[in-house]
Parts: sequence; structure tokens; C-alpha cells
Amino acid sequence: MTGLDISARLKEAAERVERALEKVLGEEHTGGTVVAEAMRYSTLGGGKRIRAFLALEFAKLFGGSEEAAMPFACALECVHAYSLIHDDLPCMDNDPLRRGKPSCHVAFGEAEALLAGDALLTYAFEAAASNEKVSPKSVALAVRTLAAEAGPRGMVGGQTLDIRSEMRDYDELYAMIDGKTAALIRAACLLGYYAAVDDPDPGTVKNIVGYADGIGIAFQIRDDILDVISDTATLGKEVGSDAKNDKKTVLAFMSMEEAVRREKELTASACASIAPYEGSDVLKALALWLSDRKK
Amino acid sequence: MTGLDISARLKEAAERVERALEKVLGEEHTGGTVVAEAMRYSTLGGGKRIRAFLALEFAKLFGGSEEAAMPFACALECVHAYSLIHDDLPCMDNDPLRRGKPSCHVAFGEAEALLAGDALLTYAFEAAASNEKVSPKSVALAVRTLAAEAGPRGMVGGQTLDIRSEMRDYDELYAMIDGKTAALIRAACLLGYYAAVDDPDPGTVKNIVGYADGIGIAFQIRDDILDVISDTATLGKEVGSDAKNDKKTVLAFMSMEEAVRREKELTASACASIAPYEGSDVLKALALWLSDRKK
Repeated sequence: MTGLDISARLKEAAERVERALEKVLGEEHTGGTVVAEAMRYSTLGGGKRIRAFLALEFAKLFGGSEEAAMPFACALECVHAYSLIHDDLPCMDNDPLRRGKPSCHVAFGEAEALLAGDALLTYAFEAAASNEKVSPKSVALAVRTLAAEAGPRGMVGGQTLDIRSEMRDYDELYAMIDGKTAALIRAACLLGYYAAVDDPDPGTVKNIVGYADGIGIAFQIRDDILDVISDTATLGKEVGSDAKNDKKTVLAFMSMEEAVRREKELTASACASIAPYEGSDVLKALALWLSDRKK
Repeated sequence: MTGLDISARLKEAAERVERALEKVLGEEHTGGTVVAEAMRYSTLGGGKRIRAFLALEFAKLFGGSEEAAMPFACALECVHAYSLIHDDLPCMDNDPLRRGKPSCHVAFGEAEALLAGDALLTYAFEAAASNEKVSPKSVALAVRTLAAEAGPRGMVGGQTLDIRSEMRDYDELYAMIDGKTAALIRAACLLGYYAAVDDPDPGTVKNIVGYADGIGIAFQIRDDILDVISDTATLGKEVGSDAKNDKKTVLAFMSMEEAVRREKELTASACASIAPYEGSDVLKALALWLSDRKK
């Protein structure tokens, strides 16, 4: 682990992903309409690109190339961007701001934002299925996994719990976090693996899912913790917003001490899941970096 | 063509598609949430299943089986159902009724309808990619085509024109119809072909697209004509609703005579495109049936 500057690696990868996304979302692929413009507005120019990074790194871990994984990485970022657009809509969270700029529906109109989300979700599958650097078998595996993790049993399932569940206990909250956050992280890690391998080994899949679930749930717990312990200047948004918005967080069901302990445990368990694989130090460093992040 | 009762064939196929959709959209695949219920509410129990029928018939025309094409047929119906749910939302057409029953957002709530549409669109790709009766190459082709025709250059592109374009001439209207109606019909015909063949012949693809474009545009022109010449009892909805809702139809740019002539021409051109293929009489009969339909 010595000498591994994960923050620099993330930043460099994010720049490469940005360039790939600019190409993938260019007018020749998405058209010159206002909705295509809204797609670019909400996908380009920001974000840590954690999901893309995971896909690229898992591909490399199993002998694949970044080039082969890039279309999958772009597809993941499109799905992530769509989910944020639809989340911000008036009938959902009604959030006028996203990453410090007007939300898609504020900038382009509600119907346009709805369509931009629909277009990004659809286009993600076109981008993934157009990956000619991998075998058709890898494409089929990737599409099936991405759709399963983003669909009614995955991300949309998490959203459903968010709008409908009373969150009476930690199990319900856990199920929501699993859908809203961990599902797409699972897809990211697995799509990276499928970019390298089209005959997946069940034991390896299990270990990859173990890592993804660990960092996915830990990520949300860390978010909930930061909303309490951070300060507005560091966080880049108002602290205490969860409590203000009456949002149920893990801290509704456990003490701060317990939340910190559990987050560390999940991170350690994530690291243990991939420890057997040579070259997994980058992914271990990422897990620790996410766990220590200040915003 | 003698003895071919296309209306009975359609009805029988619709019943088989309905049974397949019931299975595909069952709780084990979509979950037991209110959103999964909304997915089933808006997809099951109705519709002529024209898109599914096209996929099944094109598969058979090129030596494939109905069984191999059925997952693609279900995926197409899921995409169609999603598009209707999102179309009916308050920020789009704000339509409280769909096929004589409350629209999804009226029955389940706006956020739930948004998520049900998202879930159906996502799940369509899972259903298509889980097709194990065809090769991974066929799966990759089908996903890529379905996404392209449903995405920003296809169906969503048509929707974008619908909400933003001033429709100054027939060309703009044609582009909108091409996206809103013909795109998914193209996908249906091609997915059927890809269920039979995973090394598509460009000339055959061109002929299939010729047929799909012909019946796709003719379908919309016939809709516009019926809205004027039919009566409410036959049509099952109010006639003259296009004019009442200030909706631009082909009749804004041509006389009724010209519209009828053009619709017949498109149908004839569709039939000519597939005439070379033995066994295409069912698809020819479908084109003529659609052209003659009274509702």
C-alpha cells in the first residue's frame, strides 16, 4: 500500500471517464435536442465517478483492460445520473439543487427532466451493449446484471421503500440502503469483472459482491455520520439536513459510537473479501479512503 | 392469404403473450412492492400486443421459434407500457385515463408511477438479456437495437419533439411520429429477426425496417383519420379529441383524401418490403388489417 495515492488515482480516472462520457453523450449519439442537452448537463462535469472507477479497477484486477471496461463504466454513470434526475423531480424529493447547480428540472423543465432521465437510462443499455472490446457473452452478462441491480428488485426497489416505508427498524432502512446505494455499486464491481471474464467463477462473484456490499452500506452510514459531525464548509452542503428534512438515517436506530463501529466493520469486511486477489491494494485503499472521507 | 384469419391469430398470440408477461412480471422477478403492483397494473390485462406479435412473427419468418422470441416480445411490451405511464404523467399529457381505466399515477400516485415506468424500462432489458433460448450475440444485438430505438434518437426523441416542437411542417410531424410510434415497431420487427439469426444480413435488415417504417407511420396516420371519421361508440373514445386538444395531426398538413392515399401507399410499400420472404403472408395480412381497422 505504500506510495499508493488513491485520491490522485481517483482524480485521474475521473478525468478519463469524463472524456469518454463526453464522447459517448455527444450529439451524434444522443441528438441535438434540448433533452440531449439535459442529459449532458446532468451527467458531465462533476462527481467522483466512484462507480466508473470500480468498474475500471475490477476489470484490471482480473486481467481486463480499462478500454474494455470503459463502455460499462459510462453506462453505470448514465444510470447514476438518471437516478439523480428522477430523484430530484417535484413528485420525488423536489430538490432544486444538485451539486451546487440547479437540478435538471429547474434548468430544463419538468417534462424535459423526466425525458432526460428516461433517455439516460435507456442509452446506458445501448452504450453497454455496444461494447465491442468484450465478447457478446460479457455484454449479455453486463446488461442482465446492470438491469437487475437498477430495476425493481434493486435501485428502484430502494426508491420505493424510501417513498413508502415507515422505516420502523434498521432492517427496513438496511433494505432501502441496499437498493438505493449498494445495488449500483454491486453492478459496478461485477461489470468490471465481466469486462475481463465472460465465464464468471461463482466464488469470485461472491467475493466481489462481498466487497461491493461492504463499501456500499458503509458509504451510506458514513454519509449519515458526516451529516451530523461535519461542518457546512467542509461538507459543501448544510449539515443536519437529514434531521431537518425528517429523513431517517442509521442514527435513528443506533448511537453514533455504534454507527462508527459498524461502518469500520463493513469496510474491514469489504477489504477482506478481495484480499485474496493480487493487485487488490487499490480497491482496499479506495474502501479505506471512502471510510475516512470528510465529505 | 386465403383462410388466414389475422384477427383470430392476433387474439391467440395476445393470450400467449399475456401469460408470458404474467410470469415475467411475477413477484419473484419484480417484488411485492406497490411499484411492482403498478408495473403489473399498467402492463397486464389489455392491449392488442402488436409489438409482441411482430417480434414473434418475424422470428418465425426467419426460422426461429416463438419460444426464443417470447422474452424479447415481453421486453417490448414492458417498454411500451413504461412509455404510456410516463406519457400520462401530470408533467406530460396529464391524462387521467388509459384504456378506460385510471392511469397509473391516478391509481398509485405520481412518484409510484414514475418509479413503475423506470422499473418497467429497466426490467425490459433484464428480461431481454435473460433470454437463454438465443445466443449471447443475439442478446447483445437485441439490447442494442431496443435501446437505440427507445432512446434519445428514437422514442424519447419523438417525445421531445412532441413537447417542444412547433410542428411547422409535415417533416417535423413525420420525425415525431417516427420516434413516438415507428421506432418501437422497428425494434419489434428486428428483435424477432435477431431471435432467429445472430449474424444479420444487411439487405434483410433493410427490408424489415422498410416494413416496420411503413406500418409504423401508416398506423399513426390511420389513428389521425379515425379521430375524424369514426364515431365515439366504435372508437371507444371521444372522436375529434385531437382537434379539441389542439393536437397537430397529419390532417393539419394535408387533406383527408391525401392522408388516406398516403396511408394506403405506406401499407402497400410495407407489404412489398417483405414480399420476397416465403411465409410473409401473416405480416402482410397484419399490415392490411391495421390499415382497415375501425378503432
